Amino acid sequence: MSAVPTTSHFDLQNPIFRAHEGGKLGVHATSELHDAADLALLYTPGVAEVSLAIAEDPTLADVYTSRRNTVAVISDGTAVLGLGDIGPLAAMPVMEGKAVLFKHFAGVDAVPVCLETGTVDELVDAIARIAPTYGGINLEDISAPRCFEIERRLKERLDIPVFHDDQHGTAIVALAALINAAKVVGKAFADLTVVVSGAGAAGVAVSRILVGAGVGDVIVADSRGVIDRARGELPRHKSELAKITNARQISGSIGDALEGADVLIGVSGGTIPERDLMRMAPRAIIFALANPEPEVHPVVARRFAEVVATGRSDFPNQINNVLAFPGLFRGALDSGARSITEEMKLAAATAIAGLVERPSAEEVIPSVFDPRVAPVVSAAVARLARR
Amino acid sequence: MSAVPTTSHFDLQNPIFRAHEGGKLGVHATSELHDAADLALLYTPGVAEVSLAIAEDPTLADVYTSRRNTVAVISDGTAVLGLGDIGPLAAMPVMEGKAVLFKHFAGVDAVPVCLETGTVDELVDAIARIAPTYGGINLEDISAPRCFEIERRLKERLDIPVFHDDQHGTAIVALAALINAAKVVGKAFADLTVVVSGAGAAGVAVSRILVGAGVGDVIVADSRGVIDRARGELPRHKSELAKITNARQISGSIGDALEGADVLIGVSGGTIPERDLMRMAPRAIIFALANPEPEVHPVVARRFAEVVATGRSDFPNQINNVLAFPGLFRGALDSGARSITEEMKLAAATAIAGLVERPSAEEVIPSVFDPRVAPVVSAAVARLARR
Repeated sequence: MSAVPTTSHFDLQNPIFRAHEGGKLGVHATSELHDAADLALLYTPGVAEVSLAIAEDPTLADVYTSRRNTVAVISDGTAVLGLGDIGPLAAMPVMEGKAVLFKHFAGVDAVPVCLETGTVDELVDAIARIAPTYGGINLEDISAPRCFEIERRLKERLDIPVFHDDQHGTAIVALAALINAAKVVGKAFADLTVVVSGAGAAGVAVSRILVGAGVGDVIVADSRGVIDRARGELPRHKSELAKITNARQISGSIGDALEGADVLIGVSGGTIPERDLMRMAPRAIIFALANPEPEVHPVVARRFAEVVATGRSDFPNQINNVLAFPGLFRGALDSGARSITEEMKLAAATAIAGLVERPSAEEVIPSVFDPRVAPVVSAAVARLARR
Repeated sequence: MSAVPTTSHFDLQNPIFRAHEGGKLGVHATSELHDAADLALLYTPGVAEVSLAIAEDPTLADVYTSRRNTVAVISDGTAVLGLGDIGPLAAMPVMEGKAVLFKHFAGVDAVPVCLETGTVDELVDAIARIAPTYGGINLEDISAPRCFEIERRLKERLDIPVFHDDQHGTAIVALAALINAAKVVGKAFADLTVVVSGAGAAGVAVSRILVGAGVGDVIVADSRGVIDRARGELPRHKSELAKITNARQISGSIGDALEGADVLIGVSGGTIPERDLMRMAPRAIIFALANPEPEVHPVVARRFAEVVATGRSDFPNQINNVLAFPGLFRGALDSGARSITEEMKLAAATAIAGLVERPSAEEVIPSVFDPRVAPVVSAAVARLARR
């Protein structure tokens, strides 16, 4: 709980707290219940017939229960927003907010599940045990590197989509924005040199998706500097990154990595000094995605780069996961996909990028309120799932 | 899965299946989401303020999240209705139905959680781990004797109400009906001799609540006959029953127990022959609660008893748990009760019984659609919790 200020004072009268009173979610029945006949239909004795049919043919659970349209938004509260390990109760407002977005943007019935934290084994067991209830699982705000192992093992164990949004949601939307940003600066996507600052959940996933999308030169730096194959004793997620990135095997500081680089993607929450940004190639691209404080202030970044994106809504080019996860789950649920594949993520990114008809420095990504986004993402995912 | 017929055919066109298409529950946002300002209020960056406040003062989770009004309806599908171990997916329609009733009768937002079954340790761990999400836990359709241990350990471990409805819901409503039935037959409640047929979840809880309510002579019989202290190698739940019941230490068959008995409460799912019923005292009371097939058909029971109740809606005096659980949780959530106590259960039963102004053979219990029921139960529970 180190991230929690112990002396702060909260103004419970302000509109934020008022908007959260009583929580942000409700549950409702989708059928009318008026009399004994309704009761006999929706509950006993009628429901027994439905239960028996599902027991005989489990696929009927997707037809006759709410499972097929329900996603669990699961967190143990160990890495909430930029706030750190604040626990499951404090994570609840965020997970409820996420559930509101699922419903609003894609009609998905999402429910928060906030877990007491524990070992990877304990969390995987608990999540796998409740999984029959849901059509998909959105993992959220679980600290790295535990999040990688938890997601990997759940994907192996379950036959429903499991998706850690802090990783893949960020990666998909960053990729979408980068596809368009490359067009704006007139550089071929595959030829970009991209430096990713940060090797946590988002850094790992962004790096992997860029490699998967064909960027030949991706370099990742963490707080100790550039990750290369020579650096000893790397944790698993970093040693795996080392294998697929840094083709030129450069080493040193992030400044060294930025020498001549076309793109900087900040997902570290740290700061990057101007003297390092100065070393980037002409017509550079900077995505400073830490929230609420980007690694470089967008106004400063604009001095060194032609295209700048952040996670903030008060500057152009907001990289917001809400562009990805609602449509992604909508498509997966509708098509009965059993997992979210790498191809689906790439297709989602391409679909999002494609909505910007004339990319410019001020617009490399659609607005989160663009109503076309979730449908095109959903369609792209469903098309691959049905193939 | 032994209870599942393997050759049955289901008419998926019939109204029962149509009523279940797509499931019976939906999730909705309780606030409007139109623009970037709403998004900033309900999600980032606004929500961070709420999360930090809860991290500092966890009791605020009851004010600023949906937790306080949310109950998990949890089953592993091992004892669903009278259908046996049909698994978590097949349990879903029942848990959804229960959630519909929670909302309809008491405004509680209930969500199903259907678990892959496992050992008692595994189930307790999984349920305890997800518990921060909820204001209360309703356990449902978990096989005996595991259900006793699971409930006991969860009650010890958690500071929110944990309530196994198959036990206590049935017990509360049966007690309510018996209070009025005793008046109808003109016998003092404390002087009744009650035979409980069945020592599963409902049988144990009914027996315990009757003892707690002051019935001096409660005798329990299972499939092997009367439970007495002389019977060896009893499982824990039966040896505990043996200690508090059967004051006269009779032994033998259920027929022997019924000799001169005032009340028979059937919660076994078996059948009780007429020659046994014949041995009951004059002005007898029979509650044959197995569903959908009572231990004694109500028409037959009426030949041997002045008051007859069943679980069925097509005969008078339906003993239905829905008379108890919605109001019970409503009262517990509203008052911040940390558990459902024995006193609360007794108070709930007394409150339900009190709604029948002039008890008669045809009316010892209110209708499930009597709108006064949940409020009086809720008020009774909250009064005790606040004391």
